Amino acid sequence: MRNAYTQLIDLIRESSLLHATQSLLGWDQEVMMPEGGVAFRSRQLAQLARMNHELATDPRIGELLAACEADAHLMADPLSVEAVNVREIRRSYDRRTKLPPELVSEFAKVTSIARHEWAAARKASDFSRFQPHLEKIVELNRRKAECFGWREDGEVWDALAEDYQPGCTAAYVARVFAPLRERLVTLVGELTGGTCRPSDAFNELKLPIGQQLRFVRYVAERIGFDFGRGRLDQSTHPFCSGTHVHDVRMTTRFHENNVLDALGSTMHESGHAIYEQNLAGRDDESLIGLPISDSVSLSIHESQSRLWENQVGRSRVFWRWCYPKLSEFFGVSVKGFTEQQVYEAANRVRPSLIRVEADEATYNLHIMVRFELERGLLGGQLKAGDLPGAWNEKYKDYLGLDVPDDAHGCLQDIHWSMGAMGYFPTYTLGNLYAAQFFEKAREDLGDLDDQIARGEFTPLREWLNKNIHRQGMRYESEPLCEHVTGESLSAEPLMRHLEGKLRPVYGL
Amino acid sequence: MRNAYTQLIDLIRESSLLHATQSLLGWDQEVMMPEGGVAFRSRQLAQLARMNHELATDPRIGELLAACEADAHLMADPLSVEAVNVREIRRSYDRRTKLPPELVSEFAKVTSIARHEWAAARKASDFSRFQPHLEKIVELNRRKAECFGWREDGEVWDALAEDYQPGCTAAYVARVFAPLRERLVTLVGELTGGTCRPSDAFNELKLPIGQQLRFVRYVAERIGFDFGRGRLDQSTHPFCSGTHVHDVRMTTRFHENNVLDALGSTMHESGHAIYEQNLAGRDDESLIGLPISDSVSLSIHESQSRLWENQVGRSRVFWRWCYPKLSEFFGVSVKGFTEQQVYEAANRVRPSLIRVEADEATYNLHIMVRFELERGLLGGQLKAGDLPGAWNEKYKDYLGLDVPDDAHGCLQDIHWSMGAMGYFPTYTLGNLYAAQFFEKAREDLGDLDDQIARGEFTPLREWLNKNIHRQGMRYESEPLCEHVTGESLSAEPLMRHLEGKLRPVYGL
Repeated sequence: MRNAYTQLIDLIRESSLLHATQSLLGWDQEVMMPEGGVAFRSRQLAQLARMNHELATDPRIGELLAACEADAHLMADPLSVEAVNVREIRRSYDRRTKLPPELVSEFAKVTSIARHEWAAARKASDFSRFQPHLEKIVELNRRKAECFGWREDGEVWDALAEDYQPGCTAAYVARVFAPLRERLVTLVGELTGGTCRPSDAFNELKLPIGQQLRFVRYVAERIGFDFGRGRLDQSTHPFCSGTHVHDVRMTTRFHENNVLDALGSTMHESGHAIYEQNLAGRDDESLIGLPISDSVSLSIHESQSRLWENQVGRSRVFWRWCYPKLSEFFGVSVKGFTEQQVYEAANRVRPSLIRVEADEATYNLHIMVRFELERGLLGGQLKAGDLPGAWNEKYKDYLGLDVPDDAHGCLQDIHWSMGAMGYFPTYTLGNLYAAQFFEKAREDLGDLDDQIARGEFTPLREWLNKNIHRQGMRYESEPLCEHVTGESLSAEPLMRHLEGKLRPVYGL
Repeated sequence: MRNAYTQLIDLIRESSLLHATQSLLGWDQEVMMPEGGVAFRSRQLAQLARMNHELATDPRIGELLAACEADAHLMADPLSVEAVNVREIRRSYDRRTKLPPELVSEFAKVTSIARHEWAAARKASDFSRFQPHLEKIVELNRRKAECFGWREDGEVWDALAEDYQPGCTAAYVARVFAPLRERLVTLVGELTGGTCRPSDAFNELKLPIGQQLRFVRYVAERIGFDFGRGRLDQSTHPFCSGTHVHDVRMTTRFHENNVLDALGSTMHESGHAIYEQNLAGRDDESLIGLPISDSVSLSIHESQSRLWENQVGRSRVFWRWCYPKLSEFFGVSVKGFTEQQVYEAANRVRPSLIRVEADEATYNLHIMVRFELERGLLGGQLKAGDLPGAWNEKYKDYLGLDVPDDAHGCLQDIHWSMGAMGYFPTYTLGNLYAAQFFEKAREDLGDLDDQIARGEFTPLREWLNKNIHRQGMRYESEPLCEHVTGESLSAEPLMRHLEGKLRPVYGL
């Protein structure tokens, strides 16, 4: 008879395998499917979800988990492959089995209507139309949180964030965000208050999409995306979808007069993709589909995309390597721009109302607004009806902007209408981790800046492979940060990065 | 309590839905998947096949079928939606449940090795290396046939052909093929024996792939492929894969110096795709995934592809419309060719050794060789060891060619190594149905030739929609032919088509 651990792993692999198929259908829907396929595709996805829910909540998993957890020998080293797998399988099994089916189905029903109503409300720029749905969503999220539970010294928000960021709490986020907010507001004030404006002209240059496509493919390959085990396509909203370690698909987008947007999106998604392509399953097929070969959390995932997009892709040294490539790929059209002008165009800072269009610095202020407000909604300190006012006040405080209407304010994001609360902070946590990891990599690799200036990205990628990608879920996010950098997460590295780069760009 | 029929239909829809997902993964594997994904994809497909086998052989289906068959009211009209669904669900349920699992798994094992050995044998052009595997495959196919059974006056071959062509028998095929072979051999002799050779120069013209792509997309759309409910991509071997009526995907291929190959492939696959896009489920969602909204057989499917490729795409009147389009899409490069020269280039006849490169006329002789030999192998009249000799003799008799080696002879096709016997004749039956349907359409539509010359393809497509596509599996292939054309299948229409077109081209 096979032992409990082996049996457990076989059941989990079966569920992961089906999940990879779900993921492929999702990718196909966004990138390839003709519009006629929409209704049928949702039936296909619902069928697979139903089948996978059955596999993943099989009571045998519970029995085998209990047997494994009772096996002192198996669990002796909490960082062993076996112990990590058991710990994380337990976590997700409990998440999936703790919600009563009625709540799951009510949640699906309410959010399906809410998404539709959110879209209509945003179009009409009328929050009152969305408000009753938001109230229901907050209420259902509270009920979900009650089912999951949270630590005695914690709060409702923590129980929900667990889906995106295991081990994360609102108190932790608030502690990290407080000094960051203060210093960011100061920095943005300095930059926009001065008289120097970096050159913007390169952002207006029209370049053929075909040439842009060849250019970003080249850069993606150079920084380490393996096209033999992945694809790059186009979609309205760029994303990366990892079917499994040997088939990772990402997308980017193109505008004729914004090659930097295509480059930034591609480097961002390449960062996600390089993580997925270098999980432990890369070297050991038997680990594919298991937690030890899965990503830690959304924020650690985001740290990988932001590191390549921002720490590398918007750096002065990167443009030393990349500037000559522009002529190679685009010919004479780029001759009128200096290396410095292109670098400056990649580093504009401008407070704006819409998160997804925000620059590297102000982006984090958008996130803080959302985190503080959803924490208030869930905790009961903020009523749904007071959301627009609270939103607009914070945009004035943090970004110095007047919000003209709800469409440009609290109705801009789809996330809450889908029921996702506890998600937004992972973006800024990702920026913080990226900066802290990058500082440590520079310390370890010595002449990292010179390597980047020479277009040598392999040492950095291998450092990330070893320290982050191959670890899988061995550590939670914060312990991983401490393990890799020797420090707990702090606002310092990101602020050093932003201040050190942006002040000179703005002549300060 | 819902009645037996409704419950049955729900179970079948569930299985069809999963089958659509299998089909999508197959398409993705051929067209999109990076090479790194191969091993994992076969695991995904195996999982879905296992799950779908469970759904499709659920004993409840057998019980519900029996209940439906006993319901005299439900089955009163054998051509009703309900009776057709019950009849065809019974057919496929019996097929799936009649084979013992050991035989299925032995068949999979033997053919998996045989495919590999066939590839090696073909590379070495050494039949003796493949012979023991072919012997096993013949033996296993005989055992499969025994499980399925066949009519008293029939033979082993019939039981296998049922998978591709329900209701078809070797005697029927032989009866249809005999006069066709005689007249084809005579015609090909006349054409190649004369002194007149149609112009070949257009087949050597180099045209950019990008322009070819836009051209064939335009033609596909004009003849009726709906890009809002389908895709056209590229693959080494063109194919059409219908996930469901609203998402039909086809591929084509391009060579710089053979735009007619790209056009022919595209019109061929468009014919398959137009069939799939116009099944009864198009107008009634509730029929999607049921036999009444499924294609009749491989030969009727092939009749749709061949009709657009040959009856339309190689006709004099088609080129009256299409010739001016060449200048629109390719500019001056095509100016040196007359309409007549392009038409002639599309209608070369040249006996050759390789089936997949054969022209419209000689293609059928390749098929007859294969049909006669596989019938002999299964019936025991031909030993596997005697295959190369028998093959070469028939190529001499039918095509007047000496086969130089096994790679250019009996090792050229993959089909038998995959275990597929009873499949080849569907290609030529498709050509015969195409010609017979087209004659009837011309009779019904009056000025069909003038319509085609004006680029008006809608009347023909609607005629096919009504008479063939919307019928689904209501009729078997031969009864459908009689229902649509008033005659049983005969070699006459195809020979009238070929003789009437090719003799003038060859100055006879």
